[in-house]
Amino acid sequence: MKPNTRFALSLFMLAMLVPVLSQAGEHPNLIMTKAGVEKIRSALGTVPLFDATVEKVQAEVDEEIELGIDTPVPKDYSGGYTHERHKRNFFMAQKAAVLYQVLDDEKYAGYVRDMLFQYEAMYKDLPLHPKTRSYARGKLFWQCLNDANWLVYMSQAYDAIYDYLSPPERQRLEDNLFRPFADHISIDSPQFFNRVHNHSTWGNAAVGMIGLVMGDDALVERALYGIPFDEVDADGKDDDGGFIYSRDGKAGFLANLDEPFSPDGYYTEGPYYQRYAMYPFLIFAQGLHNARPDLKIFDHKNGVLLKAVDALLALSDADGEFFPLNDGQKGMSYYARELVTAVDIAYHVGGRDPRLLDIAQRQGQVLLDDAGISVALGVRDGEAVPYEKTSVNLSDGADGTQGGVAVLRHGDENLTLVFKYAAQGLSHGHYDKLSFSLYEKGDEVLQDYGLARFVNIEQKGGGNYLKENTSWAKQTIAHNTITQNETSHFQGKYEIGSQHHSVLHFYDDTDPDVQVVSATETNAYPGTTMRRTMAIIKRDAFERPFLLDVFRVDADEENQYDLPFYFLGQVLTVNFDYESPATLRALGEEYGYQHLYLEGVGTPGSEATRFSWMGNGKFYTLTSATRASDELMFTRIGANDPDFNLRRDAGFMIRRHGAGDTVFVSTVETHGSYSPVTELAVNSNSSIATLKVVYHDADYTAVSIGDVSGETSVFVVAYSDSSSEFEHVLDVEGVTYQWSGPYLYTN
Amino acid sequence: MKPNTRFALSLFMLAMLVPVLSQAGEHPNLIMTKAGVEKIRSALGTVPLFDATVEKVQAEVDEEIELGIDTPVPKDYSGGYTHERHKRNFFMAQKAAVLYQVLDDEKYAGYVRDMLFQYEAMYKDLPLHPKTRSYARGKLFWQCLNDANWLVYMSQAYDAIYDYLSPPERQRLEDNLFRPFADHISIDSPQFFNRVHNHSTWGNAAVGMIGLVMGDDALVERALYGIPFDEVDADGKDDDGGFIYSRDGKAGFLANLDEPFSPDGYYTEGPYYQRYAMYPFLIFAQGLHNARPDLKIFDHKNGVLLKAVDALLALSDADGEFFPLNDGQKGMSYYARELVTAVDIAYHVGGRDPRLLDIAQRQGQVLLDDAGISVALGVRDGEAVPYEKTSVNLSDGADGTQGGVAVLRHGDENLTLVFKYAAQGLSHGHYDKLSFSLYEKGDEVLQDYGLARFVNIEQKGGGNYLKENTSWAKQTIAHNTITQNETSHFQGKYEIGSQHHSVLHFYDDTDPDVQVVSATETNAYPGTTMRRTMAIIKRDAFERPFLLDVFRVDADEENQYDLPFYFLGQVLTVNFDYESPATLRALGEEYGYQHLYLEGVGTPGSEATRFSWMGNGKFYTLTSATRASDELMFTRIGANDPDFNLRRDAGFMIRRHGAGDTVFVSTVETHGSYSPVTELAVNSNSSIATLKVVYHDADYTAVSIGDVSGETSVFVVAYSDSSSEFEHVLDVEGVTYQWSGPYLYTN
Repeated sequence: MKPNTRFALSLFMLAMLVPVLSQAGEHPNLIMTKAGVEKIRSALGTVPLFDATVEKVQAEVDEEIELGIDTPVPKDYSGGYTHERHKRNFFMAQKAAVLYQVLDDEKYAGYVRDMLFQYEAMYKDLPLHPKTRSYARGKLFWQCLNDANWLVYMSQAYDAIYDYLSPPERQRLEDNLFRPFADHISIDSPQFFNRVHNHSTWGNAAVGMIGLVMGDDALVERALYGIPFDEVDADGKDDDGGFIYSRDGKAGFLANLDEPFSPDGYYTEGPYYQRYAMYPFLIFAQGLHNARPDLKIFDHKNGVLLKAVDALLALSDADGEFFPLNDGQKGMSYYARELVTAVDIAYHVGGRDPRLLDIAQRQGQVLLDDAGISVALGVRDGEAVPYEKTSVNLSDGADGTQGGVAVLRHGDENLTLVFKYAAQGLSHGHYDKLSFSLYEKGDEVLQDYGLARFVNIEQKGGGNYLKENTSWAKQTIAHNTITQNETSHFQGKYEIGSQHHSVLHFYDDTDPDVQVVSATETNAYPGTTMRRTMAIIKRDAFERPFLLDVFRVDADEENQYDLPFYFLGQVLTVNFDYESPATLRALGEEYGYQHLYLEGVGTPGSEATRFSWMGNGKFYTLTSATRASDELMFTRIGANDPDFNLRRDAGFMIRRHGAGDTVFVSTVETHGSYSPVTELAVNSNSSIATLKVVYHDADYTAVSIGDVSGETSVFVVAYSDSSSEFEHVLDVEGVTYQWSGPYLYTN
Repeated sequence: MKPNTRFALSLFMLAMLVPVLSQAGEHPNLIMTKAGVEKIRSALGTVPLFDATVEKVQAEVDEEIELGIDTPVPKDYSGGYTHERHKRNFFMAQKAAVLYQVLDDEKYAGYVRDMLFQYEAMYKDLPLHPKTRSYARGKLFWQCLNDANWLVYMSQAYDAIYDYLSPPERQRLEDNLFRPFADHISIDSPQFFNRVHNHSTWGNAAVGMIGLVMGDDALVERALYGIPFDEVDADGKDDDGGFIYSRDGKAGFLANLDEPFSPDGYYTEGPYYQRYAMYPFLIFAQGLHNARPDLKIFDHKNGVLLKAVDALLALSDADGEFFPLNDGQKGMSYYARELVTAVDIAYHVGGRDPRLLDIAQRQGQVLLDDAGISVALGVRDGEAVPYEKTSVNLSDGADGTQGGVAVLRHGDENLTLVFKYAAQGLSHGHYDKLSFSLYEKGDEVLQDYGLARFVNIEQKGGGNYLKENTSWAKQTIAHNTITQNETSHFQGKYEIGSQHHSVLHFYDDTDPDVQVVSATETNAYPGTTMRRTMAIIKRDAFERPFLLDVFRVDADEENQYDLPFYFLGQVLTVNFDYESPATLRALGEEYGYQHLYLEGVGTPGSEATRFSWMGNGKFYTLTSATRASDELMFTRIGANDPDFNLRRDAGFMIRRHGAGDTVFVSTVETHGSYSPVTELAVNSNSSIATLKVVYHDADYTAVSIGDVSGETSVFVVAYSDSSSEFEHVLDVEGVTYQWSGPYLYTN
């Protein structure tokens, strides 16, 4: 396939016709402005959040200045000295330069100048980085990505000390350092620069930002629209098996803004990479907002950049930690520096949403620039209002038609369902159609494993992705969804998975006590249709809301289905018999099964299989409407993991043999509490007495849920006509139900 | 063996001659006094800590009064409704009665009276509790222990509303409820009442306290000295295999005070049970202090009760959680209600140590009585000073000669070593001679497994001890000490273990940067002498203090030694090759080995075997001077555990074959940090380059520790003459060292 280079070129040429309103003559003009600096200087000492950040940053930078500047010959992977030193350098240079503006103290400008000239002296003769693992090697770092990071920060530093430098000094830096640096990560590395991928966003921002500072319109255009595609081999693939270049010939910052973000601001790779990508998106956008107001960058695609900040905050748990959808490291949260940037800029340029001040307060720091002072003033003046997260349904895909991610929340995040029915998520995507994870406040109840990587920890594969990320973390069986015939969705193949996405059936959060989302997947297994409906329900007889999961499969042949639930904590009790093997063996050979030990296997003892566990000082119960022929399995992650790269976490799995059309119905309750200090066990038993499929045909699945007080409720999903006009009439066990809309719940 | 009943009897008769200074005529006179109540009432509203507790307790009691009183027919084990209801009743009655005194509101007295009469109505016809598992069945509860709990609290409730009741009401309660209740848990249950065991302490306190309130001197004497032994079968054994009765014929409260507490206040069962036992000890002592000042109970055995409070606080980590020595549930801490009692009473009667006010502040609550108001006034008046824990060496045994427990702390609990060289610890003891655990602040670095029990969680064996407590948790291999020939110390036999104890070699915490403890065990394996010396050392080249472990074994034949280290977290890197088995099998058949899977086995690649792991956002490295023929094993707990009663925690183990005399030398460092938010890995590598045994003979072991900066230090333990007068002269690798005292450290 040849990308549409004509389209890209025409965009490029069109852009060239727009007069470039460069203000290269006035500095700072990128992230800080002259007006902003005046505002900061006059407010200094009266804005606690800003003042505290100045104090902290100053202490940090002063300590670095004491140590002296070191720009070692590049040698190491991430985690190693030269990598970490160059990384720290650009952070410190940006901070020092900002302090120069804020405090008007030339000590900081001099430090930045000296560092830049050390780089200038070494860069012109610098070969490619000696480590060869990357598809796009940098010079200071082993991959262009990190070089781009360097330039994004150094552009800001350069802008902030621009006026401090003499014109000949600027000339030397631009000729010997910045321009060749920008060329290396773009012209010389198109496989890095011209993609629709978070790596490229960094490259685009880097080149564009230095272009804005230098007043180099050609670099800015390259950043915005990419390198013309006729200069590039357009059919290459990257190490992860993905196509390097967009199939429709788009590249550059605007393409990266259009493509991976849905109209709702969801970033297709997932929140962990959205967090990482937000920084270059927002920092370059802020620069464009100041230096190229003609582009109206924050209005682009109906203000998608600002929506993205909201979407990202919505994809965090009660502790602010992001849901680890696709490749995501657990623990990453809105306390990360990228989110300080995102929240401050979104507040500053995006209508001053006072809820963002609440997040900024929790972060306890602000940017030392125009955006940061806005936030700090807002906080100081008591304008913050609580950021209360609500249920949200975020579409995926550039035009919002490639499935999505729904987050159902009850009350104050007492129960939070994260349901994924999205597109593949580019090269960081997992094969986990219709998977979910469940949270209560900041605690995981049923986990998404996240990635298999120890980011920046040199001892574990140089801090990079481990092979278990592919062999385990991406595979379907690593997720709380159905694996058919022990084979991952799309056979775990990116070329297939990236062609498809799940489809929303319906989403309804209008009744806070019965919130429902339902989606369909028809491509993961040809010939099989999977339809999953998940609801968060609160009933009077229950202490807390519970999760209802109706997972229907229709297939044109008999299959084996595995549906695991990755719980965290210790097994308390089950209502079925099982055998515990004397030796632990891997459950299979491939698709992630090679990493699971079988710790127990049994068969249902009743219609409603019950399994309780405890963790986080709470009790949890999974109840599932099982068949007598089902196998119930306790699994443990860790087989074939000689380097101990995986966590030894547990799973409970329902295996159904020889089934074509079938339905898995389960509830998950959280209940009670236990404290090792009081040693009181409160409400340690499930409130569910019965769980049955009471009707199932092509058009409907009906489930009855009986509680221990003797009350029974019925939940019906309609698959045929979901419109509110259509009136459903259904007889279930002698009762006639009539309703309109895609589901019915009788309490 | 027949206990010395004559001695017990003579004590008993002697006690009968002491005039009983009963003040039964004035109430309250047990835990509260008339003077104390006056003080409380006049201070009310001006003492925040007290007022806050009143408010909290009042809200709790008011809610219970709303619900009405329920005294169901006894039926359940702990965790079940009738158990939990009766338990809640006595807590509520005690609180309501106290509120009556504090607030002078008859609503509370009436509630207590009504509840007591419901009990009076049911008790006279109540059979033994229907559950038969206990060696001493109660009536309201399945074991006398819980009945005794009831009476300890109800005595206080009765005392507080004594004057509110009419004389005929009191007569009815005493005749039909309290006296028969006291008789059931004493005369009718000598196997419960007459032991030297924490159960008996509860029984003694219960009988004594109701005796004090009723002015019944016979009950008080029974409580203090036990039932005369000629009324009892003295050779019985309990379910745990321990002798029921003390071998020297002692029983009663004073025997229980003399026997399990060392002169330093260490309770031989360990801190978890010390915490549990402290309540009846202190609450009855407080009652005796008020009603029987002639006994001078707080001066008994040089003030051991007050020393016990200090000892218990010393046995907690930086978060206040007790070290789980012997049977101990992790997470139990000085926030437990028993410690509120202990701290308040110790402050009130024990010289008003202002450091106790610091703990009380953290607890955030006080007793609603004379002791509580003292504490609350002290806190209000700003008298609290920080409770800074220091290193401490606590002797074990009634006379302090049965080994002990040493806790070495560096700085602000940055590194805390818990070294156990104690006696068996009665029936709750573990076979873990010379074992240790390591903490940094409140985090476990190398763990003591603790108990195998889910206290009060009905689903797990009724909340009682699980069989894995015996098969795993008590066994030697479950601890960070040496197991010889895959057999536990004393063959895991209580009858043998309880005859012996380890012996202190020396303890020296005078130099905060080199603190050392050393002890010897000669009985765990006949023919083998184990000598372990552990030091916490801080050197300039190291970021933090590290642990040095010199574990010497001298045996008269060749043995296999296993030395495990139970780390918590994820394996980072090792400097040796190992094989990972494709299937996991149990490592052995008995002595706990049946619960360990072997996850990897290798051999040393160098003299200094290195193993790094990470957890709690920190890095840890174990370095060990190994032999080429050693086996290095990764183990995982969980084999032969069909009910998932054990945690799937990991261990690293050094196995040495065919060794007679040998020495294991290891260091454990904690270093650096990692945050998933910043993704920065700081100082992730060990500072130790070399670790060697440079001298080893009958009298000395010398170790050299080389750090990455190239500096080497030498540590020598002298086993022969440890006196400060003796001058050691030793040539090690061409250098002559001269020193006096049991160890030398050259920095």
